[in-house]
Amino acid sequence: MLSNAPASASETPLRQDALELDAIVADIVLSSRILAREGIVDSFGHVSGRHPRRPDHYLMPRTRAAELVTAEDVLVFDLEDTLVTATEARTFAERSIHGAIYRARPDVLAICHHHAPAMMPFCTSDAELVPVFHLGATMGATVPRWDSQDEFGDTNLIVSTHAQGDSLARALGPNWTVLMRGHGATVAGRSIRELTFRAIYGARNADAQLRAAQLGSVRRLTAAEALSAAEFNLTPFAMDRAWEQWTRHIHAAGHP
Amino acid sequence: MLSNAPASASETPLRQDALELDAIVADIVLSSRILAREGIVDSFGHVSGRHPRRPDHYLMPRTRAAELVTAEDVLVFDLEDTLVTATEARTFAERSIHGAIYRARPDVLAICHHHAPAMMPFCTSDAELVPVFHLGATMGATVPRWDSQDEFGDTNLIVSTHAQGDSLARALGPNWTVLMRGHGATVAGRSIRELTFRAIYGARNADAQLRAAQLGSVRRLTAAEALSAAEFNLTPFAMDRAWEQWTRHIHAAGHP
Amino acid sequence: MLSNAPASASETPLRQDALELDAIVADIVLSSRILAREGIVDSFGHVSGRHPRRPDHYLMPRTRAAELVTAEDVLVFDLEDTLVTATEARTFAERSIHGAIYRARPDVLAICHHHAPAMMPFCTSDAELVPVFHLGATMGATVPRWDSQDEFGDTNLIVSTHAQGDSLARALGPNWTVLMRGHGATVAGRSIRELTFRAIYGARNADAQLRAAQLGSVRRLTAAEALSAAEFNLTPFAMDRAWEQWTRHIHAAGHP
Amino acid sequence: MLSNAPASASETPLRQDALELDAIVADIVLSSRILAREGIVDSFGHVSGRHPRRPDHYLMPRTRAAELVTAEDVLVFDLEDTLVTATEARTFAERSIHGAIYRARPDVLAICHHHAPAMMPFCTSDAELVPVFHLGATMGATVPRWDSQDEFGDTNLIVSTHAQGDSLARALGPNWTVLMRGHGATVAGRSIRELTFRAIYGARNADAQLRAAQLGSVRRLTAAEALSAAEFNLTPFAMDRAWEQWTRHIHAAGHP
Repeated sequence: MLSNAPASASETPLRQDALELDAIVADIVLSSRILAREGIVDSFGHVSGRHPRRPDHYLMPRTRAAELVTAEDVLVFDLEDTLVTATEARTFAERSIHGAIYRARPDVLAICHHHAPAMMPFCTSDAELVPVFHLGATMGATVPRWDSQDEFGDTNLIVSTHAQGDSLARALGPNWTVLMRGHGATVAGRSIRELTFRAIYGARNADAQLRAAQLGSVRRLTAAEALSAAEFNLTPFAMDRAWEQWTRHIHAAGHP
Repeated sequence: MLSNAPASASETPLRQDALELDAIVADIVLSSRILAREGIVDSFGHVSGRHPRRPDHYLMPRTRAAELVTAEDVLVFDLEDTLVTATEARTFAERSIHGAIYRARPDVLAICHHHAPAMMPFCTSDAELVPVFHLGATMGATVPRWDSQDEFGDTNLIVSTHAQGDSLARALGPNWTVLMRGHGATVAGRSIRELTFRAIYGARNADAQLRAAQLGSVRRLTAAEALSAAEFNLTPFAMDRAWEQWTRHIHAAGHP
Repeated sequence: MLSNAPASASETPLRQDALELDAIVADIVLSSRILAREGIVDSFGHVSGRHPRRPDHYLMPRTRAAELVTAEDVLVFDLEDTLVTATEARTFAERSIHGAIYRARPDVLAICHHHAPAMMPFCTSDAELVPVFHLGATMGATVPRWDSQDEFGDTNLIVSTHAQGDSLARALGPNWTVLMRGHGATVAGRSIRELTFRAIYGARNADAQLRAAQLGSVRRLTAAEALSAAEFNLTPFAMDRAWEQWTRHIHAAGHP
Repeated sequence: MLSNAPASASETPLRQDALELDAIVADIVLSSRILAREGIVDSFGHVSGRHPRRPDHYLMPRTRAAELVTAEDVLVFDLEDTLVTATEARTFAERSIHGAIYRARPDVLAICHHHAPAMMPFCTSDAELVPVFHLGATMGATVPRWDSQDEFGDTNLIVSTHAQGDSLARALGPNWTVLMRGHGATVAGRSIRELTFRAIYGARNADAQLRAAQLGSVRRLTAAEALSAAEFNLTPFAMDRAWEQWTRHIHAAGHP
């Protein structure tokens, strides 16, 4: 845990801050493990959350497979991606993705970068990813694509500089999911739970669309349907139902 | 349990009613968990059963992932979808699907609404879903399609009014499975076990048909074959074999 | 167990017979459970073995999901599919498949009928199933197709008469696997272990071929390659490696 | 264990050798089990490592499903594939693959031969396998194909002679992965961990490419991107993240 406020302290403002921080850290850990269990991340991919009291900082685990992340692994970075936690732990080169989007999008409170198998066909072809069913629409009505070749030519595909992160953030624009050619996807949210839901159902939308294409035609939602369905399914009323189930799976696997 | 008749009571008519009710509730719980385990429902999707003694009422769980449903979660609704159980629990907006079909089809005693991945390609393309093998034929020889756009234009895709439910029930007509464009499928049955069997093998038929299409041709059953195969496979002789296995899986997972 | 010879008896011929019978029954149980675990059978599908000392009889479980079959479920039938075990247990209508092939093919000592998802695309389209890799070649260099329509018109697709069984056996001819349009596949073997291996790798061949077709071309083995590869992979040297692993999985799942 | 140096011995050179040998044997066992769990090998397929102190020898398990391999199963062979361990154990006919590549490529310290389902479509069609995403690029920028027909005509597809092994090694050339028509793939590495990573992400690349093809277009990495991405992802920084997770899975399954 990042906070060390004594458990018996009266609920002072500082104590409140610590509890709020612990809650975000716990959600980062849960989200990491949920995304691993649901097949969105494997040994690679990472989840971060904006710091609840210091919006110019974000929380992100040290380099580690998401399935194994614990609260002790979560570090604090400023929005220039500089580590501010005193630690010997190694940090993700791709934290450049996170800082750039937090800088560009004050409304974004959580980010995930992943290479979900369901999403990869759309990252490695020219096909447009579009919302085809109501839950899938939570990925956003429009899913732009970013190609590192356009501005940076031949690279190792890793987003590891401010310039690359800013370029990706521009491609994301006001949307919630962006595809990265030859690499994977980056997803943003207004909370860690929203982010988790969007990453999972975005991948399920990709899977449904791929298989509809195999039948010879894809019926996409209208823009109005996509917006309306996303709004409905991102209410706590819908999201909490999934969160309860996913959390149970993680607890059943022995994580506290 | 919805009944509280003392276990030691002699078998009066009231006692019999209570036992019958408990059996339906237990089957709703088992069906919910089986459909989750078999990949038909995820955090969304729901199963209901008509009330065994009050055919103008139906039983349906509160909003909760099907995998987690218990007997205590099952509530009673009248056919206008009004909750008659005294409870603070939240109810599904989509109970409109259930009431409308129970009103339109006195022969229907059980309903499931789902978004099974295997079914989604047919819900998000224009391809017709047809019976291609004997067990798959239990979904019905004809599987009509409903598109909320036709009568209701842009919506959030959720069936949440009587008008929408009635429209869907008309599309279902005398059949047992109806596809909902951009959304999922709704399945009806003459019992909860029949419904469960049909939902699972309907999805397996969809999977077989999709992959046959990838080979360049789909051989559908003749109408007579489909009717005859469905009749054979919906006898207890066949269904009980699956029910025994599915029930074992649920019990092995620790559910009583 | 079908034999009740006392364990302390000296090894008389009768005792030997009983041990041999027990071994076949144990292999039928293991094969049933292995085929369930490997995704070849679900709640439907069945395995039989010719009686080791009475070649005009065969052993086959009562109607039950293969995953749940125990030694106590195995019954004895004559080659006319008449049950000779004294029991109240229900028998498979499709034992007609088994008797007909045992009658037509003295070299066949084991039979499985299944609806493996990997095989279904070839049962529900006109595409020919061909050996594409060495282990897959164990299904046979040629896989004929049988269509119940040809001789019997509209049926419920179930093979339940001698005439239907004989027709299927003729379609199988001297081969080891036969596809049944709109239904599934039937596989024969010279032992239960060979049968199990062939059913599993036949399905894996189907899966590889389907996905090769998605890439636009399928390279089949030459007839000589297929024969030679099948011969090599059906030696105990190769088969025992798989059998050791599959048996471990079953034992790990708690079956004795 | 192949070494029997007493645990209390001072760290003499001989003791060091023994420890180094034990470490390689342990990695062969772990890699075998990891590749089984990740779906790269089933009952067939094998992993070997060059002997750490005698580069003209290699270590490889006796014939056994990779999932079941233990340290006691690992044997020593010279580069002519002659068994030098005193044992009654059966050896793989396909050790010809291993010896030939160790002879031809002094830089290769580890080899795996497998029939991963994800790779098979490219082994059974004429489609070229190309790197489509950064992690997949670790399989090598170029993946050549070998067809046993070209030099050896109709065979059982098994590589079991020096001539066949040498032919395959020539097809591999300076690359790291080679497809074998109608059979599977062979993968080489500069360490057992690199080999394991490459085999797994090569298969995931194949899966992504197959599904991109289903969308109608495949965007491959440029040659410079592929080289650069492979270099980055084969550093311990990246590989250790996967190795930690995969090792945990094996330990959680009860292997010491």
